[in-house]
Amino acid sequence: MSEQSPLDLAEGDPFGPHNLPYGVFTTPAEPERRRIGVRIGGYVLDAGAAALALGSPYAALLDRPTLNPLLAAGRTAWRDVRRALTAWVTVPAHRADVEPLLHPLDDVTLHLPYEVADYVDFYASEHHATNVGRMFRPDSEPLTPNWKHLPIGYHGRAGTVVVSGTEVVRPRGQRKAPADPAPVFGPSVKLDIEAEVAFLVGTPTAQGSPVPLADFREHVFGLSLLNDWSARDIQAWEYVPLGPFLGKSFATSVSAWVTPLEALDAARTAPPARDVPPLPYLDDSADEEPGGFDIRISVAVNGHVIAEPPFAGMYWTAAQQLAHMTVNGASLRTGDLFASGTVSGPELHQRGSLLELTWNGRDPLALPSGTRTFLEDGDTVTLTAWSPGPDGTRVGLGEVTGRISPSPGG
Amino acid sequence: MSEQSPLDLAEGDPFGPHNLPYGVFTTPAEPERRRIGVRIGGYVLDAGAAALALGSPYAALLDRPTLNPLLAAGRTAWRDVRRALTAWVTVPAHRADVEPLLHPLDDVTLHLPYEVADYVDFYASEHHATNVGRMFRPDSEPLTPNWKHLPIGYHGRAGTVVVSGTEVVRPRGQRKAPADPAPVFGPSVKLDIEAEVAFLVGTPTAQGSPVPLADFREHVFGLSLLNDWSARDIQAWEYVPLGPFLGKSFATSVSAWVTPLEALDAARTAPPARDVPPLPYLDDSADEEPGGFDIRISVAVNGHVIAEPPFAGMYWTAAQQLAHMTVNGASLRTGDLFASGTVSGPELHQRGSLLELTWNGRDPLALPSGTRTFLEDGDTVTLTAWSPGPDGTRVGLGEVTGRISPSPGG
Repeated sequence: MSEQSPLDLAEGDPFGPHNLPYGVFTTPAEPERRRIGVRIGGYVLDAGAAALALGSPYAALLDRPTLNPLLAAGRTAWRDVRRALTAWVTVPAHRADVEPLLHPLDDVTLHLPYEVADYVDFYASEHHATNVGRMFRPDSEPLTPNWKHLPIGYHGRAGTVVVSGTEVVRPRGQRKAPADPAPVFGPSVKLDIEAEVAFLVGTPTAQGSPVPLADFREHVFGLSLLNDWSARDIQAWEYVPLGPFLGKSFATSVSAWVTPLEALDAARTAPPARDVPPLPYLDDSADEEPGGFDIRISVAVNGHVIAEPPFAGMYWTAAQQLAHMTVNGASLRTGDLFASGTVSGPELHQRGSLLELTWNGRDPLALPSGTRTFLEDGDTVTLTAWSPGPDGTRVGLGEVTGRISPSPGG
Repeated sequence: MSEQSPLDLAEGDPFGPHNLPYGVFTTPAEPERRRIGVRIGGYVLDAGAAALALGSPYAALLDRPTLNPLLAAGRTAWRDVRRALTAWVTVPAHRADVEPLLHPLDDVTLHLPYEVADYVDFYASEHHATNVGRMFRPDSEPLTPNWKHLPIGYHGRAGTVVVSGTEVVRPRGQRKAPADPAPVFGPSVKLDIEAEVAFLVGTPTAQGSPVPLADFREHVFGLSLLNDWSARDIQAWEYVPLGPFLGKSFATSVSAWVTPLEALDAARTAPPARDVPPLPYLDDSADEEPGGFDIRISVAVNGHVIAEPPFAGMYWTAAQQLAHMTVNGASLRTGDLFASGTVSGPELHQRGSLLELTWNGRDPLALPSGTRTFLEDGDTVTLTAWSPGPDGTRVGLGEVTGRISPSPGG
């Protein structure tokens, strides 16, 4: 043990013991052995090894290759495991056991930490939906008549949800501008990002059992940043009448870190006032706990911040999305992931997609790495975020990053 | 062994040794032990037990609780296992070993035989899409401009795909007729069926590797009947702009039996002439094997046949759907299921949904069980089908059935 312990964090470290997000990692020495890790400062604690070393009853949940057993264990287990972990990284008596089980972040490989069951993407920012409506349906009201009555969402492709760091191959597909006589096929020329927050379901439900607003915490384990890569040209040509398909299904990147809901208690915030009263199953006006989360997102292209979307302003909350998604009796499975939709605020600098930032290419962005309308091959996009934590601290959300590689033959 | 063996099938039995669909079953004696079964006549052969009894090298694929290992084993294994099964049920020398492993169909419980990875639903019948367009968008061309250029599809909810026989609870949700001032919430009053054929993916692909038309048989193991239950009132209110969501996600019923593609070689048929030339990745005009399947579907409500939709007339083939679904680089997983969309032919009696049969309720059907526009609580819907087999035989497809139970509190 060195004098300077990895557990002696700098004042205000956003990955301090008040945070403790979960992931799954391997080491170069054992590249096949996936293990659950908990991030603390710049280190990953081998949580399963710690549980075994300390004789914890939670070894059965932590000494595993994925988070799924912990996710399925339910809210009481989530709380108890978190308490144990907090003790392991804060109580001096544990240091001798814990320190040898810490791996510098740079020395490990992070993996998708759970098996995604169903993936649903919502459309919950009024600013985003309004911007998109103005661009794609200029002759109609920007918001469709249903928008303020229900959180619009659709199912995405669970099999192409990839962990942060995975290269994203530029998709090929059909596109057709309105003036073109016929569609053409080729690499997307409008490859975009969507800065989102994704919620991860732990506790499943039976078919026919809706989840009321008040039960949100019984079912949702935590959240992560997510980039819902979108090929705008493919999407625009395909999406009427059944919604987005190939314009989205090629890849969705999610952070390697899942922040437990409990770490975000201080980030709870009231959602915007709703100018249309929601139906009772969506009415959160009397809820004790505010349904929003104050999450400050940064979107960077090649290291340069291009937007800072505020999650606090989302019209529909995650609890409303969960209540809506299940009100028809649809069941939940452990590993279901549902994302917010692009987070955009009212200001230009708060828009979470290049589509909005450049107004569909009309207003290019001047970046240090060159002028951009949409993404170019070789571009790296990184989302980071933080939330207010207890006592003036910050809770860091694990980043999600991805680099665009060229289409094969494209 | 009785004189009359279960293997002595009636002449022309549609579940003869030329068929051999796969399922998963349990017996009342061992209700927890799921096993792979192969249907022969009115019996289920315990395929794993047969493989073990006969010392087959395929026991590792057949003595399993799901089809997933067999699905993942690839086309050569599919062919070889089928050859072995054919010998077990036809070669007299095997009878003494095989007959004790046959269970009468009525004595077993059938289960969903594979884990569904992603579920995609297409929209491939020109007649269906035209009918729906006329009803839902009366002021526009019935087919959207993209319809003849690409097989339109969207992702459905994999977690609510249920096996034939599962009760379907009437979903609740929001609906709003155009003249209504605001949406109301309650049990769907337009619960419908969609008669479809679903294709099951066996061999997975890596992200970034499209599946060309010619590789269809390398990846698709077989097919099943599917009923994509649809709440038309919920769907109509929610589906613009991102497509169907809660109007579909409450339940999708699939047959307990998967018919291997090889059993349908004699059912291959040319798809309709395409009046718009497809882009090269969808152009099957030079393919040696015709891309269509001659499958004759019957839709019955409470035992009364209300429609006979012809699958042979589908505009887009399953091979085209697979090529399209992956052309953007989306990967396939073992257990991916993609369905055709409602099968409707040009005639009134060939329409695969009540929406079309009753023209959205305008023209009720007079059934022995009463007049129907959409489904009522207690109704049982059953899809059956057959295809031409070798030498004038018929290949039966396993039925898919479901009964509507009332909404809770509804």
